[in-house]
Amino acid sequence: MEKQVHIGKKILSANEEYAAINAKYLADNEKLCLNMISSPGSGKTTILARTITDLRGQISIGVIEGDIKTELDAERIRAAQAPAVQIETQGSCHLSAPQVHSALRQLPVDDLDIIIIENVGNLVCPSAFELGENAKVVVLSVPEGDDKPAKYPGIFSKAKVLLVNKIDYLAISGFDIEKVKSDARSLNKDIEIFPISAVTGEGMSLWYEWLKSSTAKCKQ
Amino acid sequence: MEKQVHIGKKILSANEEYAAINAKYLADNEKLCLNMISSPGSGKTTILARTITDLRGQISIGVIEGDIKTELDAERIRAAQAPAVQIETQGSCHLSAPQVHSALRQLPVDDLDIIIIENVGNLVCPSAFELGENAKVVVLSVPEGDDKPAKYPGIFSKAKVLLVNKIDYLAISGFDIEKVKSDARSLNKDIEIFPISAVTGEGMSLWYEWLKSSTAKCKQ
Repeated sequence: MEKQVHIGKKILSANEEYAAINAKYLADNEKLCLNMISSPGSGKTTILARTITDLRGQISIGVIEGDIKTELDAERIRAAQAPAVQIETQGSCHLSAPQVHSALRQLPVDDLDIIIIENVGNLVCPSAFELGENAKVVVLSVPEGDDKPAKYPGIFSKAKVLLVNKIDYLAISGFDIEKVKSDARSLNKDIEIFPISAVTGEGMSLWYEWLKSSTAKCKQ
Repeated sequence: MEKQVHIGKKILSANEEYAAINAKYLADNEKLCLNMISSPGSGKTTILARTITDLRGQISIGVIEGDIKTELDAERIRAAQAPAVQIETQGSCHLSAPQVHSALRQLPVDDLDIIIIENVGNLVCPSAFELGENAKVVVLSVPEGDDKPAKYPGIFSKAKVLLVNKIDYLAISGFDIEKVKSDARSLNKDIEIFPISAVTGEGMSLWYEWLKSSTAKCKQ
């Protein structure tokens, strides 16, 4: 048992070494980097595609896509006319800092203001692996239910931003958004919470303001 | 690197030993045991609570609940008047066979026809850990999107049943159910697919028929 714990630590440290290298590279280049984490199907790629389109000409975004299999998500980002690198994890349940290190070299970083890493759809494992990002963004969609901060506290404790997506489903669900806000803030008092619908566009402007001000802070 | 692979194998074997013990115990006692796997918020607990209620007097069901944190799901099952044991994994992203072995001893197994294990909400990790079940049941809910079998092939390859839940959302989503069926069957030609809504009850009768005939097979 002790042996397993010891080796677990070693793996995390190797990841952390690369995370530190990635963080230094991003800071030296004054880039904002976000690590977006959620369950499968909460709408991460739709949020990214709309954000890229709506901020065109103001903020330039590049994306690192993590999936077990397929290039589907990277193709959706490229269709929104942004550069995207797909990492296929081939079974692994989270992205690692070495994978992101290699993907960063394939992006035109000089031309970008923000790099967003869309992690593998998984509300548990990705939260334990630092990638070198400035902030984690957790996405929770209304159809998933309002009990998720209580049941999956790890990521809600660590994220700087919570996007409550698919608020266009609020009317036909029993989702209590005030309960979500209160549960998330009891884990993480400073978390920024933006209720949005990436399909209708509702609420997206506050998220965009947060992106702009956070980008500006990286350049100071 | 080789060392890590070697130890990974050892952990899996310890799990597999307990899975074999659980499987033998369930077979000796002629119980059907299902391992239910999905993303967070796909509706596993709602499906179970409705199934328990609708089959009362015909089939007796006990539940082992896996969550990172909270007893919320076990409380919902007990409210439906079925026995439930909650396992809090305290951060782990999947249930293990030793945990299920211990939970089985806390259920009134003699009084039950079926034991359903509701795994931690995670479409990736739980599929790699056998618990001793007769079959895996994967749940995919309509709001998660129709690209999930392609993006998360592991669990769709291994499951005996796919429940496509929340079909009451079909009208307001772009979800292509024929694509899901075809993608799932290309991974797993014999998978049984039941489109359902655990909220409205639509489609549940075919799932119940499958449960009844599978229970009967265990008693032959």
